[in-house]
Amino acid sequence: MIQTFDELINTLKGSQSKVVAVAYAHDTDALEAISKTHQEGIAKGILVGPKEKIEKAAATVGLSLTPFEIVDIDDEKAATQKAVALVREGQADVLMKGLCSTSTILSAVLDKVNGLRDAKLLSHITAFQIPSYPKLIIISDAAMNIAPTLEEKVGITENAIQVANRLGNPCPKVAVIAAVEKVNPGSMPCTVDAAVLSMMGSRGQIKNAVIDGPLAVDNAFSKHSCEVKGITSPVGGDADIAILPDIEAGNCFYKVMSYLALAKTAGIIVGARKPIVLTSRSDSDETKFLSIALAMKVS
Amino acid sequence: MIQTFDELINTLKGSQSKVVAVAYAHDTDALEAISKTHQEGIAKGILVGPKEKIEKAAATVGLSLTPFEIVDIDDEKAATQKAVALVREGQADVLMKGLCSTSTILSAVLDKVNGLRDAKLLSHITAFQIPSYPKLIIISDAAMNIAPTLEEKVGITENAIQVANRLGNPCPKVAVIAAVEKVNPGSMPCTVDAAVLSMMGSRGQIKNAVIDGPLAVDNAFSKHSCEVKGITSPVGGDADIAILPDIEAGNCFYKVMSYLALAKTAGIIVGARKPIVLTSRSDSDETKFLSIALAMKVS
Repeated sequence: MIQTFDELINTLKGSQSKVVAVAYAHDTDALEAISKTHQEGIAKGILVGPKEKIEKAAATVGLSLTPFEIVDIDDEKAATQKAVALVREGQADVLMKGLCSTSTILSAVLDKVNGLRDAKLLSHITAFQIPSYPKLIIISDAAMNIAPTLEEKVGITENAIQVANRLGNPCPKVAVIAAVEKVNPGSMPCTVDAAVLSMMGSRGQIKNAVIDGPLAVDNAFSKHSCEVKGITSPVGGDADIAILPDIEAGNCFYKVMSYLALAKTAGIIVGARKPIVLTSRSDSDETKFLSIALAMKVS
Repeated sequence: MIQTFDELINTLKGSQSKVVAVAYAHDTDALEAISKTHQEGIAKGILVGPKEKIEKAAATVGLSLTPFEIVDIDDEKAATQKAVALVREGQADVLMKGLCSTSTILSAVLDKVNGLRDAKLLSHITAFQIPSYPKLIIISDAAMNIAPTLEEKVGITENAIQVANRLGNPCPKVAVIAAVEKVNPGSMPCTVDAAVLSMMGSRGQIKNAVIDGPLAVDNAFSKHSCEVKGITSPVGGDADIAILPDIEAGNCFYKVMSYLALAKTAGIIVGARKPIVLTSRSDSDETKFLSIALAMKVS
């Protein structure tokens, strides 16, 4: 089971390089990130976009493009669709956003005929490594589903479990987060959703995981907190995955971990046929690199 | 301006000791915390509750009760009301929960005739000190107001500003948090509230602060994040206060900071005539001590 990002990188080094298709690739940030994964020996890249501009962007940051295949397409939409097609046809394993807009890449991914979507919900998952906790923490959804319904939370949970499974954890412990550990039907609907998701885990409707909730963040990650509060839980204090009630709570968790706790962070979109790297320009170089690595591992 | 908890403790040491009234005080946790504040020379205590049980609890953890006044009352409700009365009548500066239930102490505080409430909203504020940020961070509301309306958010914001003012910051920078920095009226109502709170700050309807929002957590605390996202904000990257959209987001911020980022943490309830210390048993000894110190400073 992979417990750290170093272990994740090492397993990638030991396997055949996977291929990242970069959509509208004349983006210095994306080029630097994909170049680093190549230097680490864990990825190949296909750069789709206007060739001259890609070469110019690479020159700006002193990168050699020799290791990469370039597919010369000028138009943003056409280049993005081509990158998606490369993934759909199996020539690439991961889709990465370059300079195309988020809406352009998502509409190409969601296209019913030529896209990458199957029956599943698309969701954002983030993985963290922090000195205070002995293993990776996976959370969802910090960036994509705004106010998920119970049905959408099932999809979010299943996607996160699949990521943990692909990191070598056959039965991750999933904490469904609320502000409290008691069900409060009158005032806190997310505690009700949490109880239902737990029972769906117990009944085998959500598979390959142990699910418990509602749990507050301290209950999920601190055994001491469970003990003093008298919470008996198969997940409490040892969670692998935290499912957050909505995008505000998810985004708070993500940003506090990444910007104030300085946790090592990787974020990807899952639920399509292959993972999508859609980092923000404000993400650190390390986060961009780790996000590509995580996407390759779960592809 | 107080930038660290050590500075806060030092200013308390230099002034006359304030008095903490502990409600239903035969609680080893509360006794240890109040004893530590006494040893540090920053607080006196009045212990209200069953005298024999208070002495027994103190003996269990090896504490001397010599420095403390004991008011011998057996009944939970009567003892709690007496502790509230001591604060109301000016004999104590801070109210602290002992073994009485949260509902008992809050109903005594909220009693219209004999309580501690004036016109203001009660809210929970948390202060953090973390190596990655150069000053204390105050957030609200992580534990009391579940899904505040816009009007309640005004009260929450005013209470937090008053705390910062009493810590010596005459004009704190307030970030109203959402998952994004753009107003999204269709899908994210908290971004609308954030914009309104900002304008109320601009118009002087909320005083003694610079307010800006919506801002995501990274925008609030990272100048770099504002720069790369092109956000021009008088608050961005330098926030003193973060107002969270609801209890789930607030509780996530609080618990990630305290349990995973290992930030030094203090939490109190404000908005009553005097601050209330209502720590959780799962809080660390340091958090209990810092919470009393913060309450004394803002009382």
